[in-house]
Amino acid sequence: MTLTISAVEGLPELREGDDLARMIAERADLLDGDVLVVAQKAISKIEGRIVRLDGRKKVDVILGEAKSVVRRRNDLIIAETKHGFVCASAGVDNSNTPGDGWIVLLPEDPDASAARIRSALAERFGVAPAVIVSDSFGRAWRQGTTDVAIGVAGMRPLLDLRGTRDARGYELASTVIAVADELAGAAELVMGKADGIPAAIVRGFAVPEGEGSARDVVMPPERDRFP
Amino acid sequence: MTLTISAVEGLPELREGDDLARMIAERADLLDGDVLVVAQKAISKIEGRIVRLDGRKKVDVILGEAKSVVRRRNDLIIAETKHGFVCASAGVDNSNTPGDGWIVLLPEDPDASAARIRSALAERFGVAPAVIVSDSFGRAWRQGTTDVAIGVAGMRPLLDLRGTRDARGYELASTVIAVADELAGAAELVMGKADGIPAAIVRGFAVPEGEGSARDVVMPPERDRFP
Repeated sequence: MTLTISAVEGLPELREGDDLARMIAERADLLDGDVLVVAQKAISKIEGRIVRLDGRKKVDVILGEAKSVVRRRNDLIIAETKHGFVCASAGVDNSNTPGDGWIVLLPEDPDASAARIRSALAERFGVAPAVIVSDSFGRAWRQGTTDVAIGVAGMRPLLDLRGTRDARGYELASTVIAVADELAGAAELVMGKADGIPAAIVRGFAVPEGEGSARDVVMPPERDRFP
Repeated sequence: MTLTISAVEGLPELREGDDLARMIAERADLLDGDVLVVAQKAISKIEGRIVRLDGRKKVDVILGEAKSVVRRRNDLIIAETKHGFVCASAGVDNSNTPGDGWIVLLPEDPDASAARIRSALAERFGVAPAVIVSDSFGRAWRQGTTDVAIGVAGMRPLLDLRGTRDARGYELASTVIAVADELAGAAELVMGKADGIPAAIVRGFAVPEGEGSARDVVMPPERDRFP
């Protein structure tokens, strides 16, 4: 089994209202069964989620985007976003903006963003890959970020192997694999952070079929073993 | 930029003392610059880290492998391993064992395990890929496991972009990417959990050069923003 992960290169700087599905379809040879991973920042740009601070403090924007604050230490805020994701600064970022005084917010509904890209590709270009919107999250106990899925369309984000058996016939205890997060992380390896590559295509992976939501990956608080 | 991720297929069930470097070299067309990802369970098997419970309770084995217990709720234990990794059951697992009453422990020193595979490949087969030993870890706030690096050789596990600039010339604030974890997760997508595929090869990724340790990914407690 071999996967390929290809960067979608040559896109111009994105602006609000850009037809990202067309821009990707013109530059990439998409096939059904592919997984198209699009960086959150690209989605936020085309959806007008890059905004001016206009005198507001960044911390107030972060608190406005947060449903709750999970941890706070000096200027570091770990917050639960309105979508339920727990991440630094409630996903508010000030890199890759048009300049000082601008700030990037997460898409309002990243699943819907993924679904719009998917249906635009299906309706106008005749190809319906699974779509993942990815973002870089920090982790408890480990340094560095890895990209994870904050929106999905055309797939379920979790592969549930409970009840299946290992190579020797023994039942796997309770194995649920966050494949959408692994796909997002794999795509990050070709997208980089500073290269202006907002999308990548994973070919050869059989995604868990069905219509899921990235919110399926959010741990219900009562089941969380960690915090 | 395109990466390929290929499963190393056709390996027999592994036993203590097996020459895993040879078994992989005979089945895979490795090149310098590749990243060879080997599942922890394969390493534990060849290193004799599959042991009989011999009347001990699993919980006592877990506590014996732990440096400290981070969270405990009923039979779920999140523990810090002797290496510094925080994970469920201190990495102790009872799937993919020879049968009931057996249990798999993490390698004593997964960096050294990775280095042994790398030098065996270099000395006897003339090829020196970077090597990652991977394991499936749960995460705070998110469901499902993703594979991460618990041992590395021939690379640094973190890509440090601090001080570099984005496509518009603005300095990236504090971006450190855990590429070894993303590589491990990408490899998991072709290895699966129940297929008897203990290794995968990632080709086309420029790893951060140097000699690192998977312990570099462990967050120093005083810097941890999450727990």
